[in-house]
Amino acid sequence: MKLKTGDSTTQVHRITESEVLAFAKISGDHNPIHVDEAFARTTPFGARIAHGMFVGSLLSAILAPRLPGPGSIYLSQTFKFLRPAFLGEEISITVTVLEVRPDKPIVRLETKVLNAKGESILEGEAVAKVPNLER
Amino acid sequence: MKLKTGDSTTQVHRITESEVLAFAKISGDHNPIHVDEAFARTTPFGARIAHGMFVGSLLSAILAPRLPGPGSIYLSQTFKFLRPAFLGEEISITVTVLEVRPDKPIVRLETKVLNAKGESILEGEAVAKVPNLER
Repeated sequence: MKLKTGDSTTQVHRITESEVLAFAKISGDHNPIHVDEAFARTTPFGARIAHGMFVGSLLSAILAPRLPGPGSIYLSQTFKFLRPAFLGEEISITVTVLEVRPDKPIVRLETKVLNAKGESILEGEAVAKVPNLER
Repeated sequence: MKLKTGDSTTQVHRITESEVLAFAKISGDHNPIHVDEAFARTTPFGARIAHGMFVGSLLSAILAPRLPGPGSIYLSQTFKFLRPAFLGEEISITVTVLEVRPDKPIVRLETKVLNAKGESILEGEAVAKVPNLER
């Protein structure tokens, strides 16, 4: 896997109701803000929103297969949840190489999720080991 | 919701194959280290492991309903993935209040996951807003 600073990949994803319900089931997080539309309408968000960690999970799914690539091992991740992601909303997930460590097969990545308006909904950094790293 | 430094909750969870397969489907991360036992046996781990972000998702599911409590809003989360979590393994997820901000209804939490041997597999910190915080 050949990687250099600035390498980037973007994936667009529309969040569906069935995904959010499936994530509630698998994680055990049945917070009504995610699963109960009538309740969600009474909140400041005004509608159901996806679990922050579901958006994080979509992001992590990009990491392994696409960037930094197959065989990579996730060492750390930070998330700042800046805005909600609504059901039905199309989000854009981008991973960009910030640094390839000179001493070890380790890369640092910027991870960012935008909503359809281009507003940042999630920002953070990941660090991954890439055993088959080429420079 | 009444919260003070040192408040803590622990949840024990056994990771099942069906959960890991469901998480692969919902996240789109079909890395064979998670879903293909024959492949996983050829890796240094020697067996299938759960997605790091699935373990993170279980952790996030504790946050809302139990600590800091219903109505809380996730502001940030950091994860260090220290060891793998194997399928069938019983893990122990603990969330502890590190700080209740004096100026705002915001808490900082330690988030930690141990395996059955008591080894740390995931560590990090979360920050959450607790609109109904009582001191």
